[in-house]
Order: sequence, then C-alpha cells, then structure tokens
Amino acid sequence: MIRLSVLYPSSEGSTFDHDYYRDKHVPLAVKSWGLDGAEIDKGIDGPYVAAVHFRFESMEALGAAMGQPGTAEVMADVANYTNIAPVLQTSEIVS
Amino acid sequence: MIRLSVLYPSSEGSTFDHDYYRDKHVPLAVKSWGLDGAEIDKGIDGPYVAAVHFRFESMEALGAAMGQPGTAEVMADVANYTNIAPVLQTSEIVS
Repeated sequence: MIRLSVLYPSSEGSTFDHDYYRDKHVPLAVKSWGLDGAEIDKGIDGPYVAAVHFRFESMEALGAAMGQPGTAEVMADVANYTNIAPVLQTSEIVS
Repeated sequence: MIRLSVLYPSSEGSTFDHDYYRDKHVPLAVKSWGLDGAEIDKGIDGPYVAAVHFRFESMEALGAAMGQPGTAEVMADVANYTNIAPVLQTSEIVS
C-alpha cells in the first residue's frame, strides 16, 4: 500500500480554511480518485497547519489517479482554502 | 483523537536503518506508550526518508505517554538507526 501525504507548512501570512478543506476539498479529491476515504489532520504543534493522507493500492494506482481528468479540478480548488504550497510525500506503508 | 507523526527528513549524509526501525524501535515505542500499534512509512518520493504515525486518545494521553520512564529509552534508541533529527508533528484527527 502507498500513502500519499499532503502537508501544509505554516508560515507568516499563510491562511487555511479547515472547514472548506474537510467539507469540500478532500471529498472532491476522494471522489475524483475513486478512494474509500482519507485521513485529515488539523495541526496542533509542529511545522504543518494541516495534512491529509490518502491510500492507494500501488504506485500504478496512484499514477492513474493523478492522470485522471478530475485531478485538474482538485488542483484548481486549492486556491479556495489556502495560499500555502503543499509538500507532497509518497511512501510505502510498511506496517 | 490525536496523531503524533515523527518525520525523518533526508539530507546529504543521512542514514536510516528501516529494518531496525520496523523490528525494534517502533515496537519499543508502542510497548512503552501502551499503544495498539503504529503506522510506519518508508519514503519513496518527497522530503522524508521515513515516518511513523502514532494515535493517542487525547493530548492528555500523549502527554502522559511522553512523561513515562520508558520514553527516555525510546529516545536513546534513536541513535541505533539514524543520524537524522526527526520533525515532530502533533495534530487533531479531523476525519
């Protein structure tokens, strides 16, 4: 299994609408990529104000999802909730 | 629910023993803190070579775990698998 984590580093002047993220953006991504769900984090302490973790069956499934037409809409929606450029981390789930 | 993510940024000259991490270190942390388990990531692409995600019932439970005597042993064990100073992220699990 592959985990795609999208991490939003906080900085001076950064904004993030957690409600929009939970209610609109992540559901859009989940639907676009045909996933069962995702795990959303709201930062309490540390470098990131928010994060989401998606699971894919394989790197091939992740690549296929990213190549779908809906991905452009997901990316365009980012400006609706934050001015932060997210950090992407792709990992193999070891256990 | 609270997620404590421990993230290991890769850099020039950094080392990380994924086998030791999976087989020795994370089980030691899980046992020391009385958790059911943890999720381990092996980095494929992005800034982090490895990560682990622990779940706690509350910030109080996280604080209590960190204050346990076994935590010193967990911290001392880090030198056995990496020379990386990890990044700590504490978050509320929104969904």
